[in-house]
Amino acid sequence: MLILDIEVKQPVSTNQFDRLASNWIMTFVGNPRIAVRLWNGDEYYFADGTPVGAMEFRDRSAMVDLIFSQRVGFGEGYSKGKIVIHGDILEFLNEVSRAFTKRGDGSYYLDKFRSLLSAIRGNTLGRSRDNVHHHYDLGNDFYAMWLDERMVYTCAYYEHPDLTLAEAQVAKLDHVCRKLELEPGQDVIEAGCGWGALAMHMAEHYGVNVRAYNNSYEQVSYAREQAAARGLGDRVEFVEDDYRTISKQCDVFVSVGMLEHVGLKNYHELGKVIGRCLKPSGLGLIHSIGRSHPKPADPWITKRIFPGGHIPSLGEITSIFEPQQFSILDVENLRLHYARTCHEWLNNFEKVSDKVGEMYSDEFVRAWRLYLAGSSAAFKSGTLQLYQVLFAPRGNNKVPWSRKYLYSPDSTGD
Amino acid sequence: MLILDIEVKQPVSTNQFDRLASNWIMTFVGNPRIAVRLWNGDEYYFADGTPVGAMEFRDRSAMVDLIFSQRVGFGEGYSKGKIVIHGDILEFLNEVSRAFTKRGDGSYYLDKFRSLLSAIRGNTLGRSRDNVHHHYDLGNDFYAMWLDERMVYTCAYYEHPDLTLAEAQVAKLDHVCRKLELEPGQDVIEAGCGWGALAMHMAEHYGVNVRAYNNSYEQVSYAREQAAARGLGDRVEFVEDDYRTISKQCDVFVSVGMLEHVGLKNYHELGKVIGRCLKPSGLGLIHSIGRSHPKPADPWITKRIFPGGHIPSLGEITSIFEPQQFSILDVENLRLHYARTCHEWLNNFEKVSDKVGEMYSDEFVRAWRLYLAGSSAAFKSGTLQLYQVLFAPRGNNKVPWSRKYLYSPDSTGD
Repeated sequence: MLILDIEVKQPVSTNQFDRLASNWIMTFVGNPRIAVRLWNGDEYYFADGTPVGAMEFRDRSAMVDLIFSQRVGFGEGYSKGKIVIHGDILEFLNEVSRAFTKRGDGSYYLDKFRSLLSAIRGNTLGRSRDNVHHHYDLGNDFYAMWLDERMVYTCAYYEHPDLTLAEAQVAKLDHVCRKLELEPGQDVIEAGCGWGALAMHMAEHYGVNVRAYNNSYEQVSYAREQAAARGLGDRVEFVEDDYRTISKQCDVFVSVGMLEHVGLKNYHELGKVIGRCLKPSGLGLIHSIGRSHPKPADPWITKRIFPGGHIPSLGEITSIFEPQQFSILDVENLRLHYARTCHEWLNNFEKVSDKVGEMYSDEFVRAWRLYLAGSSAAFKSGTLQLYQVLFAPRGNNKVPWSRKYLYSPDSTGD
Repeated sequence: MLILDIEVKQPVSTNQFDRLASNWIMTFVGNPRIAVRLWNGDEYYFADGTPVGAMEFRDRSAMVDLIFSQRVGFGEGYSKGKIVIHGDILEFLNEVSRAFTKRGDGSYYLDKFRSLLSAIRGNTLGRSRDNVHHHYDLGNDFYAMWLDERMVYTCAYYEHPDLTLAEAQVAKLDHVCRKLELEPGQDVIEAGCGWGALAMHMAEHYGVNVRAYNNSYEQVSYAREQAAARGLGDRVEFVEDDYRTISKQCDVFVSVGMLEHVGLKNYHELGKVIGRCLKPSGLGLIHSIGRSHPKPADPWITKRIFPGGHIPSLGEITSIFEPQQFSILDVENLRLHYARTCHEWLNNFEKVSDKVGEMYSDEFVRAWRLYLAGSSAAFKSGTLQLYQVLFAPRGNNKVPWSRKYLYSPDSTGD
């Protein structure tokens, strides 16, 4: 990794406020190996060892914004070009995230309380649709530029370390299908189906009938076209509607990457939806970004990228299942796989960033660069987790005896 | 399975109270295929299909006790010989447990509240010692009569379906060791070590140094003798003390079958103990009986078998880890393995029940028969779960990439 353009100079004209402010920011973050560069050329470095990057404030207001609303200030300052990152952005964010995680925060109960407070602003049906529209209806063309060819926009599974992103996404689809022990002819309900990759994979390779729900018009249109083109129209039905309208009975319930948008307040209702549609002999799986402990959503991400989202702790996730007395069978944490997935998305994104800039704006490019690199760093540092939770109605004894079958060489569906 | 001595006769002289009471009991349980037989020879059967067993009340007081304190009344009535089970006790309890589970109960919030209430009566250091003494200091000879030769008194892992109990216990020890990725020379702390089987297995086959804690004088004495006899005295230290006194740093923290005795009120303290002793690069595992949802401990089990115990839901278990911001890596539910383990213990116990009766009393034999058979039935019906939870300090990236290594043929420690 090359560290570009970083050479810490002692400030020529020391302004006491600027120095104190720079020091406060770096102490707040946990003293990362990051230099601070000011609009007037002054530079400060407070950590030990070689800096892995530098953060430049183009004017004092960017610094003040960062102090008064840390995450939003940084995200907005970077997106608007008032904060410039020198060096590799992923290295920079990995270092910040590592320092921030190591710093520790003694505010567990405060975080838990704030997480509950933020959950009160739950998603109504209408607001959910707006929130989903904000993110997913940016245009299929945009996502097609940097996702894999199946348009899978969730954590990949690098079963072997040398898989490409596209191969690791297929490995993830198979990993999910194997956990669910799909059998030909079963009825599957998928809540939040993105562009339909999992739904089509299940129908094509495991012979099941899928009814897949999604609020996004753009995604559903794309998925329907794909299913028709692949001759799967009779086995996969895409429904442009909210998961709360699901009523049909099913053998298998699966949801990959929707829970992040559901909002804590609606977990009980999601549990009820699953409770009324999953047969007593059924299996279910929820795949979601998570946290090691309850915490409100990142305010910049909420403002700029995902309105209405909540990233739950595993304890919060259990509140979906416990009122329904579901038996949790298996939880797997794939956070390092998501760090790598986001890194590959970032690499793809950088290759087309000029074109994205033309389609939208430079500010949009910087916001999405920060979001992708920041997500990778957050998964790498343990700020974010990725949980796959397999569950069944309590008395169901048709559950896997051990997990050995997941790892045998001939365990794919074909 | 033979159903002995079951032939439902219509009552000769119908007593309206007795009939109503019998019906109330069977409805409460969820209408199992169980006949009720009274002291006067009257019999009732309210379900459809062939009965799998009959419950005989030797006098009216046993029936009244059952109505007024259901679980305690049944447990005490059976132990004291005032309730007799006709037919195979495990079949009988499987049927009752299945019906009871199927019946469902709408009392999730009430159960959660009662679970919290019961947690307020937490275990002090002194009370923990008394509680442990009650169960584990019954005498090593007693447990040696029906456990495997290593004296492992927790859920076995039937990696292959044809393993014996002894082989499945070794498979469990190896499964735990593999999950923890033990490396020679590492320092391991074990909280609640029983008769020392895991501690000695880790030291002997994985080359680690173990410091193992247990409150039971009888168990620790036995474990120390065994370790000396196996030449492991320099690598395994057994400490007769409470887990709350643990302070030394370690690479690995493991606790198998202790959490059931810790009490919900002490989970935060257990988390703090792990937080202060586990190195940032460390791994930990807790193996515990669990529930699909919060519920107070079974009152008969609490009275007769395990005072001070609490069987947690997975959500309750996460409250150990979340305040410490541990990352939960992997949760495996082995409840069907525990159903089989308890069944094998029951079979062994029945072979020596006459001798146990001479050592203690017939009442003791019946109480333990009910406990072993009832536990097997509870795991089979999903009333109880068995969770293995693997975790790590949040920023630790030395965690397993996937779980494939757990299932490769050459993955034992030797």
